[in-house]
Amino acid sequence: MKACGLIVEYNPFHNGHVYHLEQSKQETQADVMVAVMSGSFLQRGEPAIIDKFHRAKAALTSGVDILLELPYVYAVQYADLFAKGAMLQLDGLNVDDVCFGSEEGNIEPFLEGYDHYLQEKSLYQSTLHKYLDDGLSFPQASKKAYESINLTQGEIDLSQPNNILGFSYVKAVKELKSSINPRTIRRTKSGYHDPKIEHEIASATSIRNEILTSQEMTRNAINALPQSTTDQLLAYQQKSGSWHSWESYFPYLQLIVHTRSVEELSQIHGVIEGLEYRLKQTVQEAENFEQWMHLLKTKRYTWTRLQRMFAHILTNTTKNEVNEFDQLEQAPYLRILGMTDNGRNYIKSIKKDLEIPIFSNLQEHQHDMLNIEERATNAYYAPIPTPKRKQLKKQELTGPIKLF
Amino acid sequence: MKACGLIVEYNPFHNGHVYHLEQSKQETQADVMVAVMSGSFLQRGEPAIIDKFHRAKAALTSGVDILLELPYVYAVQYADLFAKGAMLQLDGLNVDDVCFGSEEGNIEPFLEGYDHYLQEKSLYQSTLHKYLDDGLSFPQASKKAYESINLTQGEIDLSQPNNILGFSYVKAVKELKSSINPRTIRRTKSGYHDPKIEHEIASATSIRNEILTSQEMTRNAINALPQSTTDQLLAYQQKSGSWHSWESYFPYLQLIVHTRSVEELSQIHGVIEGLEYRLKQTVQEAENFEQWMHLLKTKRYTWTRLQRMFAHILTNTTKNEVNEFDQLEQAPYLRILGMTDNGRNYIKSIKKDLEIPIFSNLQEHQHDMLNIEERATNAYYAPIPTPKRKQLKKQELTGPIKLF
Repeated sequence: MKACGLIVEYNPFHNGHVYHLEQSKQETQADVMVAVMSGSFLQRGEPAIIDKFHRAKAALTSGVDILLELPYVYAVQYADLFAKGAMLQLDGLNVDDVCFGSEEGNIEPFLEGYDHYLQEKSLYQSTLHKYLDDGLSFPQASKKAYESINLTQGEIDLSQPNNILGFSYVKAVKELKSSINPRTIRRTKSGYHDPKIEHEIASATSIRNEILTSQEMTRNAINALPQSTTDQLLAYQQKSGSWHSWESYFPYLQLIVHTRSVEELSQIHGVIEGLEYRLKQTVQEAENFEQWMHLLKTKRYTWTRLQRMFAHILTNTTKNEVNEFDQLEQAPYLRILGMTDNGRNYIKSIKKDLEIPIFSNLQEHQHDMLNIEERATNAYYAPIPTPKRKQLKKQELTGPIKLF
Repeated sequence: MKACGLIVEYNPFHNGHVYHLEQSKQETQADVMVAVMSGSFLQRGEPAIIDKFHRAKAALTSGVDILLELPYVYAVQYADLFAKGAMLQLDGLNVDDVCFGSEEGNIEPFLEGYDHYLQEKSLYQSTLHKYLDDGLSFPQASKKAYESINLTQGEIDLSQPNNILGFSYVKAVKELKSSINPRTIRRTKSGYHDPKIEHEIASATSIRNEILTSQEMTRNAINALPQSTTDQLLAYQQKSGSWHSWESYFPYLQLIVHTRSVEELSQIHGVIEGLEYRLKQTVQEAENFEQWMHLLKTKRYTWTRLQRMFAHILTNTTKNEVNEFDQLEQAPYLRILGMTDNGRNYIKSIKKDLEIPIFSNLQEHQHDMLNIEERATNAYYAPIPTPKRKQLKKQELTGPIKLF
């Protein structure tokens, strides 16, 4: 069976994702579609609008065959580390292709860009380190370094956000010496950058904005989503009492920052360059999460960087923990959140070749990385009233979802 | 001016406290009544039903002239350390007498008991350490040690709870070589041990039980309280949205225990003898605070001990911090929560003799002990919705209440 890998967040799974899924399947002629998805917290540092199990169900009903969990230590990270973590999972499950959406829409410029990058790697790295030493974040320094080797013109334009992510995927495949074949399809432009929903294909951001503001499924949102997602959004809202956004975590973050010392805060991943003092100063003033973000934000500390930092504060993820994992050359385990019958058949067919253990719930296995996953889940569910919280938590122990 | 000191919690200030206040004033012929009161969290480890400022106001309206704050590091402690911390404050403010309620009602047996204790101190201490080594808590081991030197019969019966506390006061006065004269009045027995309110003099526990259960001021509760307390309970409920009890802190405690490692938890004061593992095991099961307490409770870990531990977990109070303060021989500062005109005149009259600085709010002073107070306040207000929380917090910065 031929398998195609996708790297996704599905926050939530919408018509644009359906398009990506169908195009990728057609492009690669795959028999089975394997998606690796971030879990409770996302790449830009936000809590997912509904939990990973409900997001997985929506995707499994709409064409994905296997849903793998991207571990927290890779999910809530800048593009290179996010890409590496995702590729470790897909490589572990022996997929043939990985197919990502990009502005470019053609894989050649990515591959040529990578060759160019290899030739200029020493200039890239010296520029990168210069800007990192100047205090820029990794993505900011990385952008400067790409500019220095002309990767914002020429082979590929790495000033386009989805091109950056795609280039990180290609880099990860090459650096891990994976046999996965990278492919890309052109993103459908329709409505992608609209802040509001204007088409049946709309951005996840615009869909979240709309339903979080109105606290209900509007006609516009329903039109931009497959039925399975609308069902799961409603089911989750019923089970938990509400959808997730940073605001409901504000009292928890405030308590943590109030009660932990600056020394303790400085051990948290993402709390760098004296941000621990800035956190202590601003916590007095802020009356809600958004206000706090505005008080913290500067040119250096981007919104995304600060949100990721808050995710790490909430989950108590330390610098030491992240350092332990970012050097891995192989996934320590594969975590299956859910699968269809077709997905199960694929796993059966490759089982004898698998080098990495498959974990399907938190109960039967022990691993430091899995402990972080459990902390992330507990932190994610914190604002939900007990006993609803306990009920939702059970999904971690009973998994995976089986759609057959 | 002659000053009489009282050591109190006023949770809330009730008719029994009025009686104690009036009897003490009469007994000592004092011109000014100075009470040292625990703040956000109490000796038995509970969050106070309303904040310290509202409790202070009720007492100032009903006859107390100066309200001093007992620092958190002494307040949430076993009798000996609680007594020492309180006496450091009263001694700092040059009071002449301290007058406490006891079953005994006569100071002579306490003084004779203390002489007896001094003679037998080596046996007391060897017995104490034997039981501490066996893993008993300090109060349990201390009780055994008092038994070993016959202080549960003979001079004084230290199996009676209020006698134990009184004996700790006498011990503190003597060990600090304070010039304060210890006095005692007999507690009014009326209704003190009733779990329900049956008289106009009722226990603070029965009053709290009644109003927390019904979430309103019942006729019984009103009858057991001076009007000023009823007013302050209602005013606080209006400002904060609700009265405080452990249940509303459950999600915060759960998040902390879920996300912090056993090593981190073991650094918290009160997390001893492997309780960090027990906390981690039981947090999965518990659906509310009371259930969690029942899962944790054993003969060794009393309810009080566990509640104190939870207060330290919530406020992130470490073993190192408490060790730093429990050896002090003088209060580092006196914190005045509120005063009447009479109280102000007393302070004027003694000001030139004072050796210790007087602090009246958190804004103008810096001290490690004051930082812990601020953490305790922030932790205490955590379950209150913002911006109500921010509004209440301001009381710490505008300090002291002036009833003139």
